[in-house]
Amino acid sequence: MAHKPEDRAQRPSPPYYAVIFTSTRTEGDHGYADQAARMVELAKEQPGFLGFDSVRDAAGKGITVSYWSSEGAIRDWKAQAEHRVAQAQGREHWYADYTVQIAKVERAYGKP
Amino acid sequence: MAHKPEDRAQRPSPPYYAVIFTSTRTEGDHGYADQAARMVELAKEQPGFLGFDSVRDAAGKGITVSYWSSEGAIRDWKAQAEHRVAQAQGREHWYADYTVQIAKVERAYGKP
Repeated sequence: MAHKPEDRAQRPSPPYYAVIFTSTRTEGDHGYADQAARMVELAKEQPGFLGFDSVRDAAGKGITVSYWSSEGAIRDWKAQAEHRVAQAQGREHWYADYTVQIAKVERAYGKP
Repeated sequence: MAHKPEDRAQRPSPPYYAVIFTSTRTEGDHGYADQAARMVELAKEQPGFLGFDSVRDAAGKGITVSYWSSEGAIRDWKAQAEHRVAQAQGREHWYADYTVQIAKVERAYGKP
């Protein structure tokens, strides 16, 4: 999933905001794959969305970091109607555990 | 790797700092596995280290987020002698690409 040097190039210089979402999936799909793809499409339409990085391993552990222009953009995305339904499904069905951390990115660098 | 609800419980309440390291591994080990384990051991001895989350998928894409008490603690870890050698090996041998983002975590919540 989105995780290439050109993704970084498309983000503005810091400061910007990151939502660090770490999770462990439950067994079975429960509609997860379709909804995850749908949430990516919706996020791309959301004002202030700057992209994301996402990795999940075979054991079901995942980290997704989404990038946003402001705290307000993060609040608006959290309150988005269809996303709220997905959040409830996530809590009840898709994730055995998860943590959400909201952070202000102050510096960034990398290779290449 | 470290990524359980009890890890979050062991972190203090925000604010604290996160280093978001996204990367793509090159083919082959090149001493990576041994050095990665060694860096975890060293980080645990470093003042201000609060833990980490790390996931890598079968395609070699990874996200590691380490947590620190202050920006000074992050600077000291970056400057740690043995870690500097590992950073150079990472740039030259282990990673096709990577991004480092330093962020101040302002809020955190989760399940359970």
